[in-house]
Parts: sequence; structure tokens; C-alpha cells
Amino acid sequence: MPHPSRFTDTVGPQAHDGRLDTPITAFENGAWRAVDDALAVERALEIHVAGAAPLITMRTPGADRALAAGLLHSEGVIHAPEEIVYLEHSPGEADVIRMMLKPEARARLDRIERSTVATSACGVCGKPSFSPPRPEDRSIDRIAGLAPEVLLGLPDTLRGEQGVFSSTGGIHAAGLFDGQGRLIDLAEDVGRHNALDKLIGRALLADRLPLSDHILLLSGRASYELLQKSVMAGLAVVCAISAPSSYAVALAREFDVTLVGFLRGHRFNIYSGGHRIAGAT
Amino acid sequence: MPHPSRFTDTVGPQAHDGRLDTPITAFENGAWRAVDDALAVERALEIHVAGAAPLITMRTPGADRALAAGLLHSEGVIHAPEEIVYLEHSPGEADVIRMMLKPEARARLDRIERSTVATSACGVCGKPSFSPPRPEDRSIDRIAGLAPEVLLGLPDTLRGEQGVFSSTGGIHAAGLFDGQGRLIDLAEDVGRHNALDKLIGRALLADRLPLSDHILLLSGRASYELLQKSVMAGLAVVCAISAPSSYAVALAREFDVTLVGFLRGHRFNIYSGGHRIAGAT
Repeated sequence: MPHPSRFTDTVGPQAHDGRLDTPITAFENGAWRAVDDALAVERALEIHVAGAAPLITMRTPGADRALAAGLLHSEGVIHAPEEIVYLEHSPGEADVIRMMLKPEARARLDRIERSTVATSACGVCGKPSFSPPRPEDRSIDRIAGLAPEVLLGLPDTLRGEQGVFSSTGGIHAAGLFDGQGRLIDLAEDVGRHNALDKLIGRALLADRLPLSDHILLLSGRASYELLQKSVMAGLAVVCAISAPSSYAVALAREFDVTLVGFLRGHRFNIYSGGHRIAGAT
Repeated sequence: MPHPSRFTDTVGPQAHDGRLDTPITAFENGAWRAVDDALAVERALEIHVAGAAPLITMRTPGADRALAAGLLHSEGVIHAPEEIVYLEHSPGEADVIRMMLKPEARARLDRIERSTVATSACGVCGKPSFSPPRPEDRSIDRIAGLAPEVLLGLPDTLRGEQGVFSSTGGIHAAGLFDGQGRLIDLAEDVGRHNALDKLIGRALLADRLPLSDHILLLSGRASYELLQKSVMAGLAVVCAISAPSSYAVALAREFDVTLVGFLRGHRFNIYSGGHRIAGAT
């Protein structure tokens, strides 16, 4: 059975720092109880790229190096691991990542910074448009004849490996599977964008991109931005437990990504790219 | 019974534009079906503040004026409706909002823009720190002796009014209630930050802030940023159907907000501010 962290990163810290016990008051069926509750930790991470203004993001601690790498990959800044000169936690500062990029990647970061404006919303904010992925990331037809039973089995596999955070509730997970439905890696975070950035970042650091022969499972909804990150990583098949948004469907259709939603129990919906799934009409 | 849109805005367009039917393939219990599925629409909105770089956010169309006002309120840019000179859809452009602010508010926007950097993550990104709300927004003790039964009834009330989007799945809602559990307003969006910005924005435009005698119900998790927006709006009681994050709990405790999580069926948890709830130990 594959180990869920084949792409090594700071899984240890994630396991230990990802939750926090706190005393709370519970009300159930008319009775009050004082109990300890496990919270998913959410804390600011500063990403200091040498020579640039720091990026700040809220995240669940753990896999921070992967998060930084994945975020910059999804933004089109880093294309390959060899563009990273160094990528480390700042000594003694658990919430600070320091990295240096080779000049060509550093120049791409400058271009993004110049086009960014203030906003309070999600990831596409401040960017004028979606930069299409490089041609080599779009060779996404290495999966064919996928059995529906493989898809139906993914949620249980993901939940089975999600031990660390399952007691906190409300944590998002992104799981990477091979074409036979075997779990390759999973990442968790209070932010679903972060979970996917961590997953893709680990693959990038292990030089495993593009992920064109893999299946992605998202524990929640499939939004535009999650599809954008998936396309950038060359994923061919993206599954979500909940609904996709209209823009996510449009993006999946534009880039011929197989997009599956409402993958629960004995059912799922195909929104795009049914040609990769055996029997789909 | 109160109308869910007492704070008037573009509820009409929301109802009509918020969903999009598209043909999909459904798999259930071994059988394939071609069906139409209703998607929650997600589309970019440009907010052009006169004299400033445009803000861009992904959102579910509808209540766009409220979204723009609420977002800028939560960022500390707009303090009161009279600081808005105009706030309108651009003629013929459904996804463009044009607004002009009075000089003092316009200057606050400049300060935020200067401190913003590129990022792919959520709303607190690029901002160096959380600006505490004004003192008048922190007079949040106008709710006392709240009955548990009032809280237990909120989710059903919200779902009962959520008609428009319920068929799409995966839409987030934010509901505003009075101290007796009567629904005052609700807002929906594929982005939960947007849903809350719309709700708060409508209250701002109606000059109803601070909301210190109201209860907020979030359809999903309570993250740091949703608490930040709530504190900025002066809310005293914030309830969530799912879990809060650790940072959300810390913020609620710092500002003495009553934070209730896992509000489902016959139970809920109190993470902060139990003194406003009758019988809580």
C-alpha cells in the first residue's frame, strides 16, 4: 500500500501543529457540558522571496515549504524545482519561509506583483487574467478507460488516511491518486486552496509535474481557482465531493479536464471530459 | 414574518443570474443518465473606485453593489454610507461596479493598496495586520440571555429561505437574525467571504451598522477572516454550521464575540462569549 507522503516534506510538523485543543462548552439535547475540542489551526505564513516583498497567507501549519512552492507554481512563477535556489524555514521562525529563485523565475514574480491590487477576496484577485499553462502541462490524455468503481472508491480511501485532522472537523483535504485509485499523497488545510497548493508543491519539489496520469480528489467544492491550479499542474481528472461552480466547469471544458462532482456513495456527476471514463455516455 | 431582503439591493439579478443549467452525465448505482444540472455561477467582478486601480474578485452575480460596499467596509476603507459618492453598475457591463469615495475614504484605500503584495490565497493576504475596529463597533453587548432554542432554530430558518440556490448545491450563505431568531437578511455566493461581504454591505448601505444586536449564521466553517469581517461589523454573536478555526476562536475571544460552532440538529458548541447565552456554564 502506498505511503500517503511519497513526496516528502514537513509531514511531521503538520501532524503535530495542525490541531489545537481548547476548552469549550457543548450543548446537546438540552444539556450543557464542558469539554475539550480539537481546533484546526489557522495561522499566518510569511513567504520571503529574496529581493521581493513578502507574501502573506493564512494556512494550517505543516508542509509550509510545499505550500510556498505550490503557490508560486500555480501562479506561474516557478516552472521546475531547479529554479529554486533555496527554500527553507527561517531558523527559529516557524511561520516564516525564506526562498531564493533563479533570475528567470524571480522576474516572473515581479510581473505578478506589478499587476496585483488590493482586495479581500480569493486567489484570482488582482490578477488580470489566467495565464494558460505551458504546452507540456497540457498533455493530459494519459488516463483512459477509467472505471466508475475506481472513482467511487476514492472518498473512502481519502477519509481513511485523513487521521490527523479528522477530529477537528471542517478541514479541507486534497488527495492525489494514480489511475488505479491508489492514494499517492494527501494534503490538508483549513483553506482548500492551501491544501491543493501543498499537494502540488510537494509534487513540484519531487520533480513529479505534470500530474497528467493522476487523479485529484477535492474534499469540498470545485471552484474556478482550484481548477486553475489543477490545469497548471497538468492534472487530467479532477473529482470533488461537492458541486463545481460554473466557471470551474467552463475551465475544465476549455482545457479538456475530466471534472467529476458530487462523488458520494454510489453516484457522481460528470461535468466535462467523460471520454476518459469507461461507459460514460 | 420579516422579508429576507429588508436591506434592499439587487436581489432580482441574484435570483436570475445565480444559477446556470448545463447538460451533464450522472452515474448512480451502476447506471448512466444524461441530465441538466444547475450550477452556481462564479464570475469575475471588477470594482472600479475612481482614481484607483480596479479590484477584481470572483463572485456569484447578484448584490454586486452590496458586495463592493461590504468588501471595502471589512477592509476598513468605508466607515459609513455617506462616504460613498456613487456606487453603480457600469451601464451595460453586468460585471463592472463603478464607485467614487469621499477623500477620507479614498485615502484609506491608498494605504491598503500600498501594503498589498501578490498572493494566491485568501482575503488576509497581502495585508500586514488586522486593523482593530473602531470603538463604536465594539459596543457588542446588546444581546443577553439568548435562549439555546433560538440558536437551534436558526439553521432551519436559513435553509427555508435559501430557495434560489438550494438546487445547485455547494453555495455558501450568511444569514442575519435579530435576538429573537427572526431572519433579517440573507446573502449567498459560491464564496463564503463574498456572502458575508454582501450581507454586511447591504447593512452598510442601509446605514444599519454596527450590527451589535444581531446574530450571524454562517452556512459553513468560521475562519479567521469571517470573524474579522464580523468584528468590523460589530456583530456580537456569530454561529457556524461547521467548525471554527483556531484563529477564529482566538479573535472571537479577543473581541468578546460569542462564537458558536457545529450548530446542527439538537446541539452546538460555544467557543467564546458564553455569557450571552442563557444557561451556558
